[in-house]
Amino acid sequence: MRLMEEVVQSFKEKNLALPIWYENASLKVLDQLKLPFSEEVYTVSDVEQLGEMIRSMMIRGSGAIGICGAYGVFLAALNSKGNVDAIKEAGALLKSTRPTAVNLMKTVDEMLSAIEGSGEELIEKIETKAVEILKRQLEFEYQLGEYGAALIEDGETIMTHCHSGALGGSGYGGRALSVIRRAHEQGKNIHVYTCETRPYLQGARITAYELKKFGIPHTLITDNMSGFCMSTGRIQKIVVGSDRVSANGDLANKVGTYMHALAAKEHNIPFYTATSSHTIDFNTKSGDLIEVEMRDSSEVTQIKGVQIAPEGTHALYPSFDITPNRLITGIITEKGVISAPYETNLKKVVENISVLSN
Amino acid sequence: MRLMEEVVQSFKEKNLALPIWYENASLKVLDQLKLPFSEEVYTVSDVEQLGEMIRSMMIRGSGAIGICGAYGVFLAALNSKGNVDAIKEAGALLKSTRPTAVNLMKTVDEMLSAIEGSGEELIEKIETKAVEILKRQLEFEYQLGEYGAALIEDGETIMTHCHSGALGGSGYGGRALSVIRRAHEQGKNIHVYTCETRPYLQGARITAYELKKFGIPHTLITDNMSGFCMSTGRIQKIVVGSDRVSANGDLANKVGTYMHALAAKEHNIPFYTATSSHTIDFNTKSGDLIEVEMRDSSEVTQIKGVQIAPEGTHALYPSFDITPNRLITGIITEKGVISAPYETNLKKVVENISVLSN
Repeated sequence: MRLMEEVVQSFKEKNLALPIWYENASLKVLDQLKLPFSEEVYTVSDVEQLGEMIRSMMIRGSGAIGICGAYGVFLAALNSKGNVDAIKEAGALLKSTRPTAVNLMKTVDEMLSAIEGSGEELIEKIETKAVEILKRQLEFEYQLGEYGAALIEDGETIMTHCHSGALGGSGYGGRALSVIRRAHEQGKNIHVYTCETRPYLQGARITAYELKKFGIPHTLITDNMSGFCMSTGRIQKIVVGSDRVSANGDLANKVGTYMHALAAKEHNIPFYTATSSHTIDFNTKSGDLIEVEMRDSSEVTQIKGVQIAPEGTHALYPSFDITPNRLITGIITEKGVISAPYETNLKKVVENISVLSN
Repeated sequence: MRLMEEVVQSFKEKNLALPIWYENASLKVLDQLKLPFSEEVYTVSDVEQLGEMIRSMMIRGSGAIGICGAYGVFLAALNSKGNVDAIKEAGALLKSTRPTAVNLMKTVDEMLSAIEGSGEELIEKIETKAVEILKRQLEFEYQLGEYGAALIEDGETIMTHCHSGALGGSGYGGRALSVIRRAHEQGKNIHVYTCETRPYLQGARITAYELKKFGIPHTLITDNMSGFCMSTGRIQKIVVGSDRVSANGDLANKVGTYMHALAAKEHNIPFYTATSSHTIDFNTKSGDLIEVEMRDSSEVTQIKGVQIAPEGTHALYPSFDITPNRLITGIITEKGVISAPYETNLKKVVENISVLSN
């Protein structure tokens, strides 16, 4: 049994929800597009196929995509029997699948930096590096979960939006769900409200799937119900993920996040985002400088292939929105929980000066 | 040709979207449950059948339900050849279909008050009263539309939520859509954002259908996108309907309304509700005294019969939420636009003292 197989085995024993893993001498990917209705697992034979799976969103989430970079280079090393050119070519291919995924770029580059020697020696170097990356991602989730869980009190109901969970990371809980999962493991009697997250329904499909899998009590709501739930005392904390955090602490996250944050402010409900200190974007000063990706109208006018509006109806689909820093109570990272003033405090975290509230 | 048929003929020439009408010696109902994918029209043979259609929500909206009361009693008069007992029995049956629909109760009682004589003489009295009620409802929509349209400027984009339109009234535009339709007819170059309105998708299905039918340019968004649209300057006014307005001007309307109102306040966007002066509920002092109806979980976990969440997922479904009066710029009625302080001004409107801003 290869080192990688042993590591995956140990991960599985931790009840992780793995998006991608290596087992019985082959790479496996869970098809997240089919969740929660069926759990289809594909065996990946080469890097081209893995690239296609990333492009099709069968596997997604910045942590998971990073891990794909590690597994993809490892697979290329195995398939090519340790041929340097083939490995570099695979790395380039992986990076091209999601050109804006910073974590994927970094991970592939880190994997390629491990190239040394050739043949089985090279494969082992690559494997060791991949294992290091996997363990680091898992450790990140535990750390972030630990810091975030300290904010959750026994008996609280926590609302989340979209999917910021295990299958978007290394399998423990990704970002927002690591906080929730850790609080649950600490024996706190918590309940989770998951917003369905139109139009793609990540909250109804994937977050609800993970909450069920991890045995965490939960209730599904439509996105437009969060205001009602807050005004009737049903929600005590909000924890969402992040697509991007700008240098001043403005948050880009799945569309709808901003409206939840406005309602939270109105009702004095603490609103947190869970993110990685590595993905805070210091090159972008504030949220208004982030260009919002507009997606296809048909993703709104159809739900799971079923038309919901008259033929010819045009729809708008901004994939995320911007939540200004003043609505954010704290930014939960693997280094601790950062509070305002963000412009100063985010920088200090990266510079490793202790300014954390935890 | 009966008087009623002539009236309906004249309505059709006005490009109304009729929810129910009398034509070729029979009563017709458009099946709103099948909209916008097919326009199925049923012929109603008796009041029992009409009652079933009201119960099944094939026809809905307070104005339209009121009209059903008028048509239903008229149909009973025709079918019974002017038998008083049969007509009274039909009235009782109609009132039992939606016991909380105040407008239905009042309309049926008004129809029954027209009973005089018997046979063809009685039928004609009933018919005259039904025609009076139909014309009054249409006049209500024109009036409300006229007052509301004065608030809309050329070139503006107006957002609406749920369906508060023609098929919920007598066919012109109901409440919110009467305002929008009238502004469009005045030659103002307007655009409408219709929120899909999960879970029942009234905005995507019925509001979009009417906007298309009336040739008003529009864009569909999911409910969670309104904050983004407001923050990016895409929306200048908001006009929604109302399930109920309490004595202090708090608004009960389809769930999600409150979150739109919060975002509107944040961005200084005028937020209006369109309602009838007759449905302002002076017996309920404020919105927090209104009990919110909770509906079945499966209406959230399924969309058009397709499951969207893991099996066994529990969902919450509050059918409406409460928007506090301080978030409401004005209440548009058929008597004019009422602004704060609502507790005083709503009462004055009913007492016919002129306090209207228009």
